[in-house]
Amino acid sequence: MLTHHDVTVRVRYAETDQMGVVYHSNYLIWFEVGRVELMRALGFDYKLMETKDDTFIVVADVHCRYHHPARYDELLTVRTSILEAKNRTLKFGYELLRQSDSKLLATGHTIHVACDRAGHVKHFPDKYKQAFLKLVVPNDSRSHA
Amino acid sequence: MLTHHDVTVRVRYAETDQMGVVYHSNYLIWFEVGRVELMRALGFDYKLMETKDDTFIVVADVHCRYHHPARYDELLTVRTSILEAKNRTLKFGYELLRQSDSKLLATGHTIHVACDRAGHVKHFPDKYKQAFLKLVVPNDSRSHA
Amino acid sequence: MLTHHDVTVRVRYAETDQMGVVYHSNYLIWFEVGRVELMRALGFDYKLMETKDDTFIVVADVHCRYHHPARYDELLTVRTSILEAKNRTLKFGYELLRQSDSKLLATGHTIHVACDRAGHVKHFPDKYKQAFLKLVVPNDSRSHA
Amino acid sequence: MLTHHDVTVRVRYAETDQMGVVYHSNYLIWFEVGRVELMRALGFDYKLMETKDDTFIVVADVHCRYHHPARYDELLTVRTSILEAKNRTLKFGYELLRQSDSKLLATGHTIHVACDRAGHVKHFPDKYKQAFLKLVVPNDSRSHA
Repeated sequence: MLTHHDVTVRVRYAETDQMGVVYHSNYLIWFEVGRVELMRALGFDYKLMETKDDTFIVVADVHCRYHHPARYDELLTVRTSILEAKNRTLKFGYELLRQSDSKLLATGHTIHVACDRAGHVKHFPDKYKQAFLKLVVPNDSRSHA
Repeated sequence: MLTHHDVTVRVRYAETDQMGVVYHSNYLIWFEVGRVELMRALGFDYKLMETKDDTFIVVADVHCRYHHPARYDELLTVRTSILEAKNRTLKFGYELLRQSDSKLLATGHTIHVACDRAGHVKHFPDKYKQAFLKLVVPNDSRSHA
Repeated sequence: MLTHHDVTVRVRYAETDQMGVVYHSNYLIWFEVGRVELMRALGFDYKLMETKDDTFIVVADVHCRYHHPARYDELLTVRTSILEAKNRTLKFGYELLRQSDSKLLATGHTIHVACDRAGHVKHFPDKYKQAFLKLVVPNDSRSHA
Repeated sequence: MLTHHDVTVRVRYAETDQMGVVYHSNYLIWFEVGRVELMRALGFDYKLMETKDDTFIVVADVHCRYHHPARYDELLTVRTSILEAKNRTLKFGYELLRQSDSKLLATGHTIHVACDRAGHVKHFPDKYKQAFLKLVVPNDSRSHA
């Protein structure tokens, strides 16, 4: 049973800062890569979710804990799971792992609200909700922040 | 008595995304602007804190709640306060306000650890700690997330 | 007679990279700040140019020459001028100056095409064209790249 | 004979702007991905070029021409070649292609200067120079801007 989805990103020079490590806001962009690829693994194209199904997953809440710095050129795994799927909200959990030694660099979550093009809150179309629900990690087996 | 510091940012085109609003990771960059300017208001130049005092405030934890979207060209106030100041850690709180109508767009916090150039945890030099402590908002008057 | 417009930006930590200087793509974002503020000085709000006049200035060409690196926390002047204004295209020139010593850090240009919402090339509405033309720097007094 | 190197990038949501297309400064970040991967294909790790050989390739000049917009979630090919390799400078050429229909979206170049850690101009170590020279595209077969 699928419980999470892994995708690889390589750290770009542009993502580093003068401390010699990745600037912290870039982790949120990798989380975006993680949830988009998780949806693709479920058979959904987030682009079409917006254009065909008029459903935008607007970010309502973000949390990230930074355990160890990511550095230039490293290969990282963004491990994404679904922590909660409700009628109008969706919560993703993330673990960021360094591939060379499997070290956990960061953990986080994002909470999203389903909105239409005009920005009004709506229910997730059923096909999404059903797919998301199948993936939800039971509460007692979670390791996410 | 100073309890917070306000700084203005104007939303750049580069900060928007195809939803027509600001992409969420940019709020973290504005928070950075907020805390650096709060430190400057306290008489500290963060640049010198790194180069002269070998003290880097590494981001360990970030939280942001998005209440209403920020949009292109809007003038925003980043209101920064200090929520906690300990020997080796520092917690900032943020409110992001739209200047045209004072609407609260987002709230958040960041937790930082004092490190030296080599990345080892250290104590904040005393002049910083004393200044930070004077600013700490008493627990019962906080509105931050 | 107005021939250029100056606006101040302060270098953000997020804009630096591990070389200890500003990552080069960020200069293009400052150029954006420069041309938007030049337009505001002419009495135009670029936001309204898009929403009310259905005119988007799409970037078609960018050049930047980097003379000296910009560094964290520096105050910079983005000096923007109009090098060419035609029916459907507009060329801006930029000089980036460090305020502490007036050193020229970078020069550049951008060429833009007027498009409507659907992405079709159009003529600039007359009010814009007239205002832009008044500002065009005569060819023999240019110092821009 | 290797004359260029292709690498794939997928457009991230964070890279779009409210025009519904990719914000233009992000192309420069993809060019960075292109030249780093070209160097890896030559057997060089740019990270080690900095740390072991004290050679930084500082960006001195950037040009990009935008032919057609890149859009969210598209798969793009960054095609990188070496246009010039001198003792102290290096010029890369780039073509950005949309994979679905091979459409050429953008062309560009970057010029770099070899510097040591302190920012002083230096010669490229010989192993790099020799490898770069083997790849240089003869002048009359170039299609780059």
